Amino acid sequence: MSSSYGENMRLTVFGQSHSAAIGVTIEGLPAGLELDLEALQRFLDRRAPGRNAYSTARKEADAPEFLSGLKGNVTCGAPLTAIIRNTNARSGDYDAFADIPRPGHADYTARVKYGGAEDRSGGGHFSGRLTAPLCIAGGICLQLLERENIRVLSRILSIGDVTDRGELLASTAEKAFPTVDEAAGLAMQACIARARAEGDSVGGVVECAVLGLPAGLGDPMFDGMENRIARIVFGIPAVKGLEFGAGFAAAGLRGSENNDPYVIENGRVKTASNRCGGILGGITNGMPLLFRAAFKPTPSIALEQDSVDLAAMAPVKLRVGGRHDPCIVPRAVPVVEAAAAIAVYDALLARRKETR
Amino acid sequence: MSSSYGENMRLTVFGQSHSAAIGVTIEGLPAGLELDLEALQRFLDRRAPGRNAYSTARKEADAPEFLSGLKGNVTCGAPLTAIIRNTNARSGDYDAFADIPRPGHADYTARVKYGGAEDRSGGGHFSGRLTAPLCIAGGICLQLLERENIRVLSRILSIGDVTDRGELLASTAEKAFPTVDEAAGLAMQACIARARAEGDSVGGVVECAVLGLPAGLGDPMFDGMENRIARIVFGIPAVKGLEFGAGFAAAGLRGSENNDPYVIENGRVKTASNRCGGILGGITNGMPLLFRAAFKPTPSIALEQDSVDLAAMAPVKLRVGGRHDPCIVPRAVPVVEAAAAIAVYDALLARRKETR
Amino acid sequence: MSSSYGENMRLTVFGQSHSAAIGVTIEGLPAGLELDLEALQRFLDRRAPGRNAYSTARKEADAPEFLSGLKGNVTCGAPLTAIIRNTNARSGDYDAFADIPRPGHADYTARVKYGGAEDRSGGGHFSGRLTAPLCIAGGICLQLLERENIRVLSRILSIGDVTDRGELLASTAEKAFPTVDEAAGLAMQACIARARAEGDSVGGVVECAVLGLPAGLGDPMFDGMENRIARIVFGIPAVKGLEFGAGFAAAGLRGSENNDPYVIENGRVKTASNRCGGILGGITNGMPLLFRAAFKPTPSIALEQDSVDLAAMAPVKLRVGGRHDPCIVPRAVPVVEAAAAIAVYDALLARRKETR
Amino acid sequence: MSSSYGENMRLTVFGQSHSAAIGVTIEGLPAGLELDLEALQRFLDRRAPGRNAYSTARKEADAPEFLSGLKGNVTCGAPLTAIIRNTNARSGDYDAFADIPRPGHADYTARVKYGGAEDRSGGGHFSGRLTAPLCIAGGICLQLLERENIRVLSRILSIGDVTDRGELLASTAEKAFPTVDEAAGLAMQACIARARAEGDSVGGVVECAVLGLPAGLGDPMFDGMENRIARIVFGIPAVKGLEFGAGFAAAGLRGSENNDPYVIENGRVKTASNRCGGILGGITNGMPLLFRAAFKPTPSIALEQDSVDLAAMAPVKLRVGGRHDPCIVPRAVPVVEAAAAIAVYDALLARRKETR
Repeated sequence: MSSSYGENMRLTVFGQSHSAAIGVTIEGLPAGLELDLEALQRFLDRRAPGRNAYSTARKEADAPEFLSGLKGNVTCGAPLTAIIRNTNARSGDYDAFADIPRPGHADYTARVKYGGAEDRSGGGHFSGRLTAPLCIAGGICLQLLERENIRVLSRILSIGDVTDRGELLASTAEKAFPTVDEAAGLAMQACIARARAEGDSVGGVVECAVLGLPAGLGDPMFDGMENRIARIVFGIPAVKGLEFGAGFAAAGLRGSENNDPYVIENGRVKTASNRCGGILGGITNGMPLLFRAAFKPTPSIALEQDSVDLAAMAPVKLRVGGRHDPCIVPRAVPVVEAAAAIAVYDALLARRKETR
Repeated sequence: MSSSYGENMRLTVFGQSHSAAIGVTIEGLPAGLELDLEALQRFLDRRAPGRNAYSTARKEADAPEFLSGLKGNVTCGAPLTAIIRNTNARSGDYDAFADIPRPGHADYTARVKYGGAEDRSGGGHFSGRLTAPLCIAGGICLQLLERENIRVLSRILSIGDVTDRGELLASTAEKAFPTVDEAAGLAMQACIARARAEGDSVGGVVECAVLGLPAGLGDPMFDGMENRIARIVFGIPAVKGLEFGAGFAAAGLRGSENNDPYVIENGRVKTASNRCGGILGGITNGMPLLFRAAFKPTPSIALEQDSVDLAAMAPVKLRVGGRHDPCIVPRAVPVVEAAAAIAVYDALLARRKETR
Repeated sequence: MSSSYGENMRLTVFGQSHSAAIGVTIEGLPAGLELDLEALQRFLDRRAPGRNAYSTARKEADAPEFLSGLKGNVTCGAPLTAIIRNTNARSGDYDAFADIPRPGHADYTARVKYGGAEDRSGGGHFSGRLTAPLCIAGGICLQLLERENIRVLSRILSIGDVTDRGELLASTAEKAFPTVDEAAGLAMQACIARARAEGDSVGGVVECAVLGLPAGLGDPMFDGMENRIARIVFGIPAVKGLEFGAGFAAAGLRGSENNDPYVIENGRVKTASNRCGGILGGITNGMPLLFRAAFKPTPSIALEQDSVDLAAMAPVKLRVGGRHDPCIVPRAVPVVEAAAAIAVYDALLARRKETR
Repeated sequence: MSSSYGENMRLTVFGQSHSAAIGVTIEGLPAGLELDLEALQRFLDRRAPGRNAYSTARKEADAPEFLSGLKGNVTCGAPLTAIIRNTNARSGDYDAFADIPRPGHADYTARVKYGGAEDRSGGGHFSGRLTAPLCIAGGICLQLLERENIRVLSRILSIGDVTDRGELLASTAEKAFPTVDEAAGLAMQACIARARAEGDSVGGVVECAVLGLPAGLGDPMFDGMENRIARIVFGIPAVKGLEFGAGFAAAGLRGSENNDPYVIENGRVKTASNRCGGILGGITNGMPLLFRAAFKPTPSIALEQDSVDLAAMAPVKLRVGGRHDPCIVPRAVPVVEAAAAIAVYDALLARRKETR
């Protein structure tokens, strides 16, 4: 099912941008896990809109209400459902597009697929707003991983033509702009500001690392860690590319350059480099799991674009109004962490049944 | 399940490099489909080893035996199982590695996962040989897609630092070396020859296009065409990156550059460019579905490498013998086509239940 | 996942008896289906508690709120979530049982499974109250089936030692007590009244028929119509037996007695009898699909029972207070219809992808 | 997928009665399990045809060949595939039925479903012969369960109107005719002999008990132990009814009669009776899991029957030739054990991921 993810813990994301509520149901969470709901809220706040200059002006509290699955703040074994009410929807903003698909959006493809019955308003189920319930599930998984000393970090690696410097070794969660190098971060913000000033938008790359993973997670073939992460990361709107470790650059290397030599460090097996991104044969090797996701520029731009009127079957000029992020990458950073945490926690549950 | 793929048509790949046989079971193929078993064999021959200078010397006929699922050459609705006997296995070649994991291979991660019970011989279930049964399933899907005028093309886009020229508009299946530009192909072969001469290996990128797809295939969120293709393509050994349309390059573009404007051509809706790779919101828009997969260089190289002896927990120098491709990318080309065909055919079956 | 059902349309039931809300998320409903929400409410009212002498005194409006998946009252292709708030919960009633499992309930098994983290209050996720969201999903499916001229009927076949007379040919939905024979219905009510007067409870059998089904629904082996219906019907609390057509009686027959002879009637193939319950090889034959589900007596009784104090590990006498149905069978009738409708509609969606 | 079963360990049964081979692929078996292949063969021999007076004369060795998944006789973590060649097929026996569906068989329903492309020969994928690969998987699970001191027993509870006496406390596997009471067994054999002499067949009931189960296996709602067992047991050809514990009889009881009182025995919680069949709320309570499956009489009988010629759409008289069991119940006994073992072992794997 397309809005569900996970094999051992399965989440289903529901809601449309302007429906009564959005939410997530999570099945398979072990019972007896105490959740820190305040920490979860702080995590959700990292994704929430309206917090700074480069994100949309639409403000939503994004405070989840837990309908089921908890006794107090402890999981009880039953499916957990949390919802966020949609309070600030202005569907009138979108009426003009009924027959005019916005370039780069799912308007046209959804119309073909659902025959016009789709909920167009605010992007419907395709809206970036639906990453909020994903972050509820991901924020829970992040907490559960932390208890096993597994940490998920991420940063903006690039915006437009500006690239971050340094390695991703520590969390950027507390930073106002999540880069390793502050100067690079300022240059990226300038890049976003320029795009916004011109009524345009810009894309970027998010890098994510999972530290502290045990070796042996993941499976051969279609349930490798790459496959598991790919299935959820390509579910984040605007992601068009994904690579692990050296990724596309590995294609230009020799085997002697790309292979990671094994070494022994403090009595444990490690690799001297990590060009495989911590995954061999789909299975973790105990080194940091490292991946990068490419986000296309926000398709909603103020500039005039060419489209067609599907009712009249005639070309039209389109200017998209409404409130939109000139760059969604900063808000995507916690979403990528959430996605990684979900994929990893699900793989961790899978591992348990193998090792008794 | 990790060796299974597909929601409406599900295949399960079984076998190890040196087990009695390898094979595939396919459930959910509609009944009454006539298969061209000779065309299937020709397709399998494109992947088979031992055919030219840059592939392993191991020769296997790769002729499938159909155990079930067919009445003559017509699908009967029951699960189809086809197997290929392993006739040319020399497991002795691998004995030396029992405790010494080869860098870049799954030896170490499989050992951790399976606790030493794994079948190491020839890479076991992780072997590239397991792409043969994937090609049986894919070859069948390719035939079924062709009857709906859907064609899957691919080419080598790059080997090492050599890049193909021109666009992927026609099949490269009949070419000895599958590039669009012949000169680029020769340069790539030279690049492979150099790596081989130096006891090394080299990686590359395969590009794949699916032409003739209807709009409306695929689903939002986790079953988008990107997700579906990612789950199977990352199941091909050595793939470390995947991008759709403009992919990673899109991250450097402005929205006004990356959005594909809608146009009307011969009374049909098209886009003037195809930077989205034929997919918006996970759903096909009727333009060519375009993706690129990055293959790391073959980890098996003749050069000496650093590894560790897991029994002695001591560093060792390792020199991998046996027969290996200095570059698996040429043989990976039909495998990528197979993977794409399977993902697309499965999505096509899913679409049917929506549209009545 | 244990609280999910369906392959092509998948529902997930969430909530506990005393959580903030109970509800259901349905993925895979085709887009563009208009729902009659008033008819749905009337269907839900058939299951709602507190309506007559033989059901619990707890009253809940059971009015669903639709959070997502609809545009007006038309499905939009996105997951549909509907919830019912729990307004009349009195969890204090259940405190006494913390360490004393009630015989016939899931108290003890849930405690072992969830290690004490389970939500005991009101039966938690095991409560019969969770059949309300199942009825939301089922009520929707019933509407969709009716549009294809498929009708789902059911009746109480027996309560205690009282058995209904006559065949199930028409709906009993409008009846105050859903039997074919009114006299039998009165005797059943007397049987229930006696049990209640004695602080006891009584079980019964529900019979269900699906009329108007096309031949060809269902699959061999593990997805036959029997298996599909079994998986959902055994998900209704208190069901301990299930049989199709002649069922257990068929075990006592000769083949010559049990085989249903084929006949031609008005140019269509039929069977002269229907001892197979409309299913052969797991697949419908176009005759009424007929099954019977056995419900054990409500385990909650006012009489004193033997139990154990799990904290003290000592025997105790237990008397269960609170409000309970002396017989849940009458309220189970629409639940069985809902379950059948869901199973059949899901099989109908599966069929679509085979027949193009 | 219809020929697959299991969530944590998944088996897929393939093959038709007269295809080159039948077999099973099992994914998810933990690595490092040593199989006793001789014990497995002895188990398979209990199901094999042609062993005595009341089974078909068709003889097959039913000796599995393992194609993958083992290293020697130890599971290696990769999918295990085992096949049995079909050596004694005589498809000519079935030609006469091309357009004349045999009453009680899947001929007609398969034809409607597969549009005539189905493999009719010998019943195709619907043949009882496909229970052989199910027994391979089940025989493996039985061995794995025994190592955890879990035993699966079964017996014939009734044939026609003859019922066994006594309780199922010990294995009947070594008996020539698997009943508890020998006299009842002789009467059953006489009943079968009479049916055979008259060219007729007879049905029966198999009872199965799983001893030594831990409490806490299984899940609420749709993955309860009842649902899990139902999905696989209704996958055995000819099963038309299934009940747990007191089953249908419970519907006639009072709560005070049907509830199983808790007691403490040797410091452990037990129930004084076992009318719930060891399952409450879908979850095992540590008492024997007990169920009964009703088998209809073999539909293939020598007596003349009414059918229709689907080509001519005219009534015909049909006399089924070939070799058939007058009663399949004796051979079904190990099949029921296999099914139970598979369901229980899969639930046991599921339990592991909850309890760390």
